[in-house]
This record gives sequence, structure tokens and C-alpha cells, in this order.
Amino acid sequence: MSETRTLASYVVSSRLENIPQDVRHEARRSLFNYLGCTIGGSREPAVEIAMRALAPCFGKPTTNVLSRSERMDPLHAALMNGTASHVFEYDDTTPMNYIHPSPPVASALFAFASANPVSGRDFLHAFILGFETESRVGNAVYPAHYEAGWHITATAGIFGAAAAVGKLLGLSTTEMIWALGLAATQAAGVREMFGSMAKYFHAGLAARNGYDSVLLAKEGFTAGEQGIEGRRGFAAVQAAKYDLSKIAKGLGEDFQIRYNTYKPYPCGLVVHPTIDGCIEIHHKEHPAPESIRAVHVRVAPLVLELCNKRDSMQGLDSKYSIYHSASVGLVRGKAGILEFTDEAVNDPQIKRVRESVTATIDKSVTDDQSRIEVELMDGRKISRFVEQSIGNLKRPLTDRQLEDKFRDQAVLILPAAQVEKVIGLCWRIDELDSVEELIKATLPA
Amino acid sequence: MSETRTLASYVVSSRLENIPQDVRHEARRSLFNYLGCTIGGSREPAVEIAMRALAPCFGKPTTNVLSRSERMDPLHAALMNGTASHVFEYDDTTPMNYIHPSPPVASALFAFASANPVSGRDFLHAFILGFETESRVGNAVYPAHYEAGWHITATAGIFGAAAAVGKLLGLSTTEMIWALGLAATQAAGVREMFGSMAKYFHAGLAARNGYDSVLLAKEGFTAGEQGIEGRRGFAAVQAAKYDLSKIAKGLGEDFQIRYNTYKPYPCGLVVHPTIDGCIEIHHKEHPAPESIRAVHVRVAPLVLELCNKRDSMQGLDSKYSIYHSASVGLVRGKAGILEFTDEAVNDPQIKRVRESVTATIDKSVTDDQSRIEVELMDGRKISRFVEQSIGNLKRPLTDRQLEDKFRDQAVLILPAAQVEKVIGLCWRIDELDSVEELIKATLPA
Repeated sequence: MSETRTLASYVVSSRLENIPQDVRHEARRSLFNYLGCTIGGSREPAVEIAMRALAPCFGKPTTNVLSRSERMDPLHAALMNGTASHVFEYDDTTPMNYIHPSPPVASALFAFASANPVSGRDFLHAFILGFETESRVGNAVYPAHYEAGWHITATAGIFGAAAAVGKLLGLSTTEMIWALGLAATQAAGVREMFGSMAKYFHAGLAARNGYDSVLLAKEGFTAGEQGIEGRRGFAAVQAAKYDLSKIAKGLGEDFQIRYNTYKPYPCGLVVHPTIDGCIEIHHKEHPAPESIRAVHVRVAPLVLELCNKRDSMQGLDSKYSIYHSASVGLVRGKAGILEFTDEAVNDPQIKRVRESVTATIDKSVTDDQSRIEVELMDGRKISRFVEQSIGNLKRPLTDRQLEDKFRDQAVLILPAAQVEKVIGLCWRIDELDSVEELIKATLPA
Repeated sequence: MSETRTLASYVVSSRLENIPQDVRHEARRSLFNYLGCTIGGSREPAVEIAMRALAPCFGKPTTNVLSRSERMDPLHAALMNGTASHVFEYDDTTPMNYIHPSPPVASALFAFASANPVSGRDFLHAFILGFETESRVGNAVYPAHYEAGWHITATAGIFGAAAAVGKLLGLSTTEMIWALGLAATQAAGVREMFGSMAKYFHAGLAARNGYDSVLLAKEGFTAGEQGIEGRRGFAAVQAAKYDLSKIAKGLGEDFQIRYNTYKPYPCGLVVHPTIDGCIEIHHKEHPAPESIRAVHVRVAPLVLELCNKRDSMQGLDSKYSIYHSASVGLVRGKAGILEFTDEAVNDPQIKRVRESVTATIDKSVTDDQSRIEVELMDGRKISRFVEQSIGNLKRPLTDRQLEDKFRDQAVLILPAAQVEKVIGLCWRIDELDSVEELIKATLPA
């Protein structure tokens, strides 16, 4: 049996009635978290530059980018939504495959729903199916694919965007197979881009290219029909080891969105346990920044692989610095958007503490953990062992915490009253007659 | 030294005066061959469908697709040019890396030159630089990259498109490094798509995505600065083995376009020696189709890897059938566009002979060779050993043969007088004040 066909027929034949309520609520939470990130990121330099650079190529003004005034064709809108959604590094993560799953799927869907009438119910359903598709493709190739250097959010994400938009456009199974094939052959994005704007662009590319795969397939543009499992298809070409059985096993029952998590801090996920511990030390032990002589953290190997940035730092790449992250936790007792800016990087207290941080790999420490030791000028030592970081599957953010996170980001862009309106609409997205109502609510006055 | 930087500075600082005349003439030949293929392919179903599917997203009508009446934004025009140029499988090939090098680069450049004023001299220069860039990136990762299943025309081609358009847009070295980084992270296209329309789309994607990389970089959109050589960059992620020294060695002296070849037949390159031999048998021995009992060909391993298509064939995938290719050579004594159509596939004589063909791997036979044995009904046997196929580096097509090939394709689309005008303009492209004159000459009346 072809895995591409299995996924395609599942997506084409799925009915929302057969999807349990807890799955639907997690989908609402995922969309809610996505929307806060995207509104918050909508005016960041990466988005502004991409808008300026590509504006001469924009198509007819049929589609809104979330929380921006410009209108354009849906492909460019998907690209811009995706870039904005990922730019704060604040999006969701499925820990079994390190995908940030909502950006590619929701970015394409919101573009589609701005250009076409879509009910909230159909939107939520398509989102769940896109999420499921990208997660299962990702599960099949993780970890070899990720370890090779692929940015799995982009490479798996494109399958999710194609499945979701293809569901709304009513593709037949054969058309869906072609759309997934066109997605397979456009899957791209390498981790060498981490620390630059290109990383955020990846989420946009997955959304745009998944979307155009659907437009082409719908008109009869053919693709290889074993895009995922073929001898020269996605899995074989992009992963040294893979397990295709993960694609079909439990499909329609074991919904992957149940494993979604939401970041409490807008930076690389693997530094979160260290931030948790440092914030706790700040609030419980109150060490004055100038009293800190040295900070030693013992962390999982992946932390130094992904977040070892130390020198000539800017706001953007401070999100990948275990040193900066520990420092803001200790100095400011928080790690929000404003702690990963050029201003924060150049704050003399943060800088001094940052330079006192050393990080060592400890293979007994998991990705969710951190061992922290702070050495004070007077010789005292403060130690913390973080066993489970906030926001992971065992300590999930509550709906209320998601709302706080949403507000923190959205108020950077929209008046508070408008933020509350968007929050209200977003929680009941699947009751809306048209998702356009929600999209319009995010636009600047 | 960073290879990305080396390539970027070379492209940015290159001057046409320093490029030898023989290189410029080969560039004219490459562009000439490209233009014939693109005009000929401009109305094929893959192009018609892509036009219809993406038309709702087209931007302002600033740009012409070659040989078509529609106008749109340059990114979509690059996509359409690229798809059209590759659809006949008649384009050029550099045998050291199996890239079809002109489609990605020229498709982006003709789109740029339709949207912006560009002199023929600058156009030819940018084309040579784009060709050089994609060839050297391809050389560095070939053969491991290709063997893994990547369609190297697409994956290396995007670097060439970015370098060429970036040269015309006057990028600084840093901007060019970002453009190559954005190209590296968009490099995609898998061989699983061979035999479907998606294969032709790859050349268009390389052109479009190389082009948008330049637009973004020009406005300051940053990318990782070691897109090619970084630990998680293009070479390391997409090739199990690679040799980065091939990127800088002889740069500016050993021009890769000198190794370009032009196909005499519109189908997979590796079946060409077999076609040569079969055509020669047709013309010299005149075996009537009904007199042929069996055909045995002994070929290089790559032939059965790439062109083993035998069953449920259509015009499109007959281009990858050693069986069909041998049959049309023997039955019709030629192998032009009309020999790879649904009509030819269903021709009863061609079908019967095709079904009598067997192909065996012979490791003593190179990719340029073929051993053919035709067994007749009366027991007679005709044998041929093709030592060098027509069109390869040792038996290149003459300028005159390129003109014949151009006419064969272009007359399918344009009146003969117009074809002659385009031929005249194209040979002296670098004397034109504006390449728009040539582009306009390709448009339907």
C-alpha cells in the first residue's frame, strides 16, 4: 500500500463528526497560539522586508495578510503569514519530531480563507487534517532527517499545508496524491539558516508551496504518485533512516495534535528548562545581578548543538543562546519578547552575567531538564535542577496562560480592546459562519 | 575561505571583457538552443495547466512569458518559461554533472529582461555567470547528490538563477551571499517525479525561487552566510560525499559552459546512443518493421536506472523508455518531437517492435555507447556498436544543426518567417540594445 495514497484518501474522506472533541479543542488552542504569534510578529523586520521586496510581484488584492493592511494574492499572503508566525520563535512544537506544526498549515489556511468563503467548522477540520499529515510525515523521517540538517518545520510542513488547502478545495484522491507529490518535490529548508531571517521564511515557503501544489493538482498538473514512499521520493532522499509504518498506524484515531505544546518563551525550545530555573532563582533567591560571579549550566547535548551562540550577538540570534537565555532569566526574572531584542543584548547587566555563563553537556540531563549552579561574589552557591520545563506535555500551558501569552504579543500591534475581540472570536472559530470575520478583526484600523 | 563568498565575489566583480570569445559563443549557442526548446514547449499541457491553475495569483502584467500572449509578474513568468523549456526534454546537458543548465538560468533572465531594460551584452554576461555558478555547485556534489535521488537541474539550477538575476540587479557581495543562501535553502526537486509534469516544473521552480531569493536579498533579507559549505548547508545536507574544492578551482578561467552539449533527440540523454544506432540501421539496412523479430541492446547501467519504462506508456513517459526509443529509431528512422507523443506510442508498428526490445546492462558500455543487435524474421542479424553518440562533447552539434533543431520545434508554434526572425536576433543577442526586442519577436501575432 502506498503511504501517499493512504494519507490522501484519509484526508479526502475524513468527516469532522468523526474527530473527538478533545482533538478539536487542542486544534482551537493551536490556532489560538498561532494567531497570537502571527499578530505579534506581523511588523517584524523580516516581514517588512519581505513585503517590500516582493510587493512588485503581488497579484490581485483578494487576500489579507493577518494583522496587516496590504492585500495581495493568496500565495504571497500565505508566505507572509508564515514568516510572521515563526519570527518570534514563539510558536508551537510537537516534541516527538521537533516540528513547529501550526505555522505552515494555518498560514496557508488563513490565506485561503481570506480569498474564499470558508466556515469556521471546515477551517478547523482542514487544520486538524493538515496537522495530522505533516506530523505523520515528520514522524516517519525523524530523527535522521532532522539530524542531517533539514528544518523539519519546513520540509514536513509543506505536506500539511497541501493537505489542508486541498481539503478545503475539495480535491479528489488522485488530485490529493498529486498535491502531496508536488509538496514532496518542493520540500526544502536547511538548518544552516538558523539565526537569520531565512529561518522564518521557511514556514512561509512551506505554506506558499503547499498551497500552489494544490492549485496545480486541482487543474490536473500531474506528479509522481509515490511522492513520500517512492525509491526517489521524500523519505528515501531526505532521510538516511525512516519508518513509513508511522504514517498509517493509528490514522484517524491517534491524533498527533494531542501531543502539541506551546512555548512559554520566544526562543529555542531546548533552552526553556534553563530559563525556568533561572527565573525561579530570580524570584526566590533575589540575587542582585552585580552579585553574580559565575553561572554553570549542565544541559542535554542538543542544547549546545542548537543554542551555542555566544559572540557578536544581535536580538535575533540571542534566541539561540543558552548564555543569553540564562542571563535574562537571572537578571530580569522573565523571558518575553523584550528580552530577545538588540536592547536586551546590549543591556550592560545582562551582558556581564551572560559572559559569566558556561554550559556543559551532561548526558544524564534530558532535553526537558537543566542543572543550574549560580556562584555569587560572596562565595555562596545556588543550585536548581529543573525536571520538567513549563509548557511541555507534562506541564502544559492552560487556556488562561495561552491568553496571557496572546495578549503579550498582540498588544505590541493592536489596541487592547481589539485584542480582546480577536481572542473571543478565535476561541470560537469553529462556530463562525465565515473565518473572514476573524481575519478582519486582526487588521489595523 | 567560504565557497559561498568566493562565488558571490566572483559574480559581483566579473567583467565581460575578461571572458574569452569562445565562451561567449558557447553561451550564444546555449541560449539559442534554450530558446528553441522554450518556444516549442510553450503550449504543451504542463504549461497550459500551470498557466490556468496559477492565473488567479498572477501579479501586475509587467512581464511576458516567451512565445505566449499572457502578461504577469516576473516570478510567475520565470516559472512558466522554465516549465516550457524543459517539457520536451530537448534542452542542454553538461555531462560531468547531468545538469540541464540553461533552463533555470535563462528562464529567470528572460523574465527579468521582460520586466526591466537589459542590454544583450549584460544579459549574455549574466547568463555565463549563472551557468558557471550552477555548474560549479553541481560539480561539487555530483555524483552522490544525483544518485541519492535529487534532480540536480533543479537543485543546482536555483543557484545559477540567483547568481544571474543578482548580477543584473547589481547586488553587493553580501547581498549575493544572502541570495545564494536563500537559494541553498530552497533547493529542491526529487527524481521520483520523473515521468510526470512535476519534472518540468522543477526547472521553473529553480528559476522562480532563484529570482525571489535575489529580490529578498536586495532589500536586506538575511540568510545564513555559508549556504553552500556550512555544516548544515546545501552540500552537507544534500550529498553524502562532496568536494567543495571544485567550486573555486579555475574559477574565471576554466569556464564550465565549454562542456555544454545539446541533445539531438527530445528524450532521456542516456538512450541517445541507442537511437543513433537504430536510426543508422534504419537508413543503411532498411529492415521493414514487420521483418523485425527481436532487438537486443546492451547498455550502461544508468540507462536502466533512468529509462526502463516499458508498460502503460503515454507520450510523456515514452521519453524515458529505452524500448520505445529503440523502436522509433528502427521504424521511423528519426526521433523528433513527434516520435514521443501518444500517437507514436500507440502506432501499431512502433508498439510491436517496442515489445520485441530487450535491454541488458553491460558494464563495459559507457553512457555514450550502445551495442545493438536486431534479429530479423528470416534469421539474419544486424549489429551496431555506437562508440560516441551524436551531440556529445566529441561529436557536438554544429551551429547549423542547432538551427535545424530550433526550426523543428519553433514551427510547431510560430509562422516560418517569424521563426527566421527570432533565429537571426538570437544569434546576435549580445548586440541588442534591449533583450526585449528578442522576447517580443517570440510572441504570437
